[in-house]
Amino acid sequence: PAKDTASLSTGQKYDTLQVITEDNITKIFLNRPEKKNAITLQMYKEIGLALDEAAKDDNTVITVLTGHGDYFCSGNDLNNFTNIPPEGKEKMASDSAVILEAFVSKFIDFPKPLIAVINGPAVGISVTILGLFDIVYATDRATFHTPFSQLGQSPEGCSSYTFPRVMGLSKAVEVLLFNKLLTAHEACKLGLVTEVFPDATFQKEVWGRLRSYGELPKNSLVFSKQLIRDTEKEKLHAVNVQECERLKERWLSDDCMNAIISFFQKKAKL
Amino acid sequence: PAKDTASLSTGQKYDTLQVITEDNITKIFLNRPEKKNAITLQMYKEIGLALDEAAKDDNTVITVLTGHGDYFCSGNDLNNFTNIPPEGKEKMASDSAVILEAFVSKFIDFPKPLIAVINGPAVGISVTILGLFDIVYATDRATFHTPFSQLGQSPEGCSSYTFPRVMGLSKAVEVLLFNKLLTAHEACKLGLVTEVFPDATFQKEVWGRLRSYGELPKNSLVFSKQLIRDTEKEKLHAVNVQECERLKERWLSDDCMNAIISFFQKKAKL
Amino acid sequence: PAKDTASLSTGQKYDTLQVITEDNITKIFLNRPEKKNAITLQMYKEIGLALDEAAKDDNTVITVLTGHGDYFCSGNDLNNFTNIPPEGKEKMASDSAVILEAFVSKFIDFPKPLIAVINGPAVGISVTILGLFDIVYATDRATFHTPFSQLGQSPEGCSSYTFPRVMGLSKAVEVLLFNKLLTAHEACKLGLVTEVFPDATFQKEVWGRLRSYGELPKNSLVFSKQLIRDTEKEKLHAVNVQECERLKERWLSDDCMNAIISFFQKKAKL
Repeated sequence: PAKDTASLSTGQKYDTLQVITEDNITKIFLNRPEKKNAITLQMYKEIGLALDEAAKDDNTVITVLTGHGDYFCSGNDLNNFTNIPPEGKEKMASDSAVILEAFVSKFIDFPKPLIAVINGPAVGISVTILGLFDIVYATDRATFHTPFSQLGQSPEGCSSYTFPRVMGLSKAVEVLLFNKLLTAHEACKLGLVTEVFPDATFQKEVWGRLRSYGELPKNSLVFSKQLIRDTEKEKLHAVNVQECERLKERWLSDDCMNAIISFFQKKAKL
Repeated sequence: PAKDTASLSTGQKYDTLQVITEDNITKIFLNRPEKKNAITLQMYKEIGLALDEAAKDDNTVITVLTGHGDYFCSGNDLNNFTNIPPEGKEKMASDSAVILEAFVSKFIDFPKPLIAVINGPAVGISVTILGLFDIVYATDRATFHTPFSQLGQSPEGCSSYTFPRVMGLSKAVEVLLFNKLLTAHEACKLGLVTEVFPDATFQKEVWGRLRSYGELPKNSLVFSKQLIRDTEKEKLHAVNVQECERLKERWLSDDCMNAIISFFQKKAKL
Repeated sequence: PAKDTASLSTGQKYDTLQVITEDNITKIFLNRPEKKNAITLQMYKEIGLALDEAAKDDNTVITVLTGHGDYFCSGNDLNNFTNIPPEGKEKMASDSAVILEAFVSKFIDFPKPLIAVINGPAVGISVTILGLFDIVYATDRATFHTPFSQLGQSPEGCSSYTFPRVMGLSKAVEVLLFNKLLTAHEACKLGLVTEVFPDATFQKEVWGRLRSYGELPKNSLVFSKQLIRDTEKEKLHAVNVQECERLKERWLSDDCMNAIISFFQKKAKL
């Protein structure tokens, strides 16, 4: 069947993802289930590459990001902060900001319908980029959490712009500034999630619906997305740059350093 | 009574509408109930004229668009696509785009409170322009459907701009790209409809409320609407132009031609 | 305890407010409970001063506006319109517009998290500025009412811009043009209120939560708010100017004069 062949043929290309194209759909699976799909530096780059391929592929009408295992994604892998290069932590912070900005840009510019299939809890960057997706379907087991201020950090993924527009300002502030965790149903009421499905039937219902979307005229979808998005693209890129600038400063702050050290201390004690 | 007189005096002016002014309210009725109020080319122009008159009329505080019969409006009359002029279908597409752009502009620029009284199902252009109304009251029998991509087309009526702002982006995408039909209650939860009424008491409750609105100080309403809308007017006109440009291309595409042919084939078989 | 000391030390500074700083929180209480906290000209200025102080104070992470007594605030004190200076009512209107514009600017520019604790009914300007707060917590006894057109006036506090963005346009129009009163739960569903609490436990639950917010890293909160707000600041100031210009004209209109005279006539009869 398509799944095995595709999986084999792309198995060599990606270390951290599984990418399958079938039924006019490119499915990008985050594939570090043993680490709750935490995103490493390599993974940021591979997701960007997979999006580039899906954008170019003539057989791809719909593109989906989802996760293998229990989690959708536990966010930025904090080990990304522990490989401090010889040039010092300033270099690490500015390298990370470059990688993050490029990663988010891929979502801003993606030209075809982009759908998130949230198979479990989502944290940090895997939540903030959802405002750049066209549809977000979630299992009722999913939760959404962006504990930035708790970690001395600040929002990314254009969420400082998209979340207030989707949720209304004061609901977005609870999430982005005050670390409020949302259930799938809460996220749906706030408009971050398009629809919630019972976990037992989630995969079946969602993929069935996506197959029907894959049969629609591609150009109408692409041009309709363009009409909806193009008016905001420039703005979104500007927001992305500002958010990454701010994080570069935040990552070097005492607030953030102390929060990360305390995270690893707690982990070491387990 | 006012109704009959007004109806008589304007009866000669409009072939496809009934227009009545009473109680400081101008009521524009779509008047092709036997065709579910599908909008012909003449009807686009007459609605524009009726809006111009209501804007100028000193006795009009509130202006209402509604339909006679079971439907609010079944959308663009597909027969508009069958009268291909000698110059060819390119000419038909560009003429249609000019008519559509002028039609939508009337709603963008309308200076007084504009209220939709949705007396039954609404389809296509009669749904997309709702984002340009100030209030939308609907019977619980109403539904809202914009099957653009199914027909190889793309959104108009500024909906590519207004729907994401009203509903949040991902809910708008389901409606505008993926042909999702909304019930009146769903449309109300998403903010497209202001309030839903039981069909049995719909007309009585709505017109009673509108009469009380008609007694408010006109200038306060006009200036308040100006404050709310003027910041977006330029943007809305730009969106309107882009949407019509895109539709001109879509109408000539194979996707669209095939969908329209298949529509008439099905109809012929009935 | 902190409350008494602070209250004493600031008692001389403000005639119409009580301002207390404790637990990293500056609490600004509207303090004319016998007048339902109606805002006098002096009070507009004192609120501005208290916000300036909270912005500068190093110990303040979170700033709260709330009211003493049963009301949050009954809006602009209509007695503000009765002290007509020798230069005539044009002078009164233009002075009032200057005061209002400066007042609203303080909220637009406030750099730290700003939270409204709505302890009872809110009317007029005390409702419209809520779109400039980061969080709005309300007792279930609160209501929200902006009867502008009824009084021949027009929206302020940037509500002509913030309300359509928070509620969706057509729900905002019912509130801003058609004098619709919202219950706390309705305001929460529309996104104007972040969360509603039972009146019996309101004060306890809200202040407990705010104390925990006060312990978060200040800079992350300030910078995150900056990211969210800075893109709109210029726009909000422009809206504020336009709204005040319009009100200057409205206050001198017959619509408004008649409404105010009728208000005081009714009051005199009681």
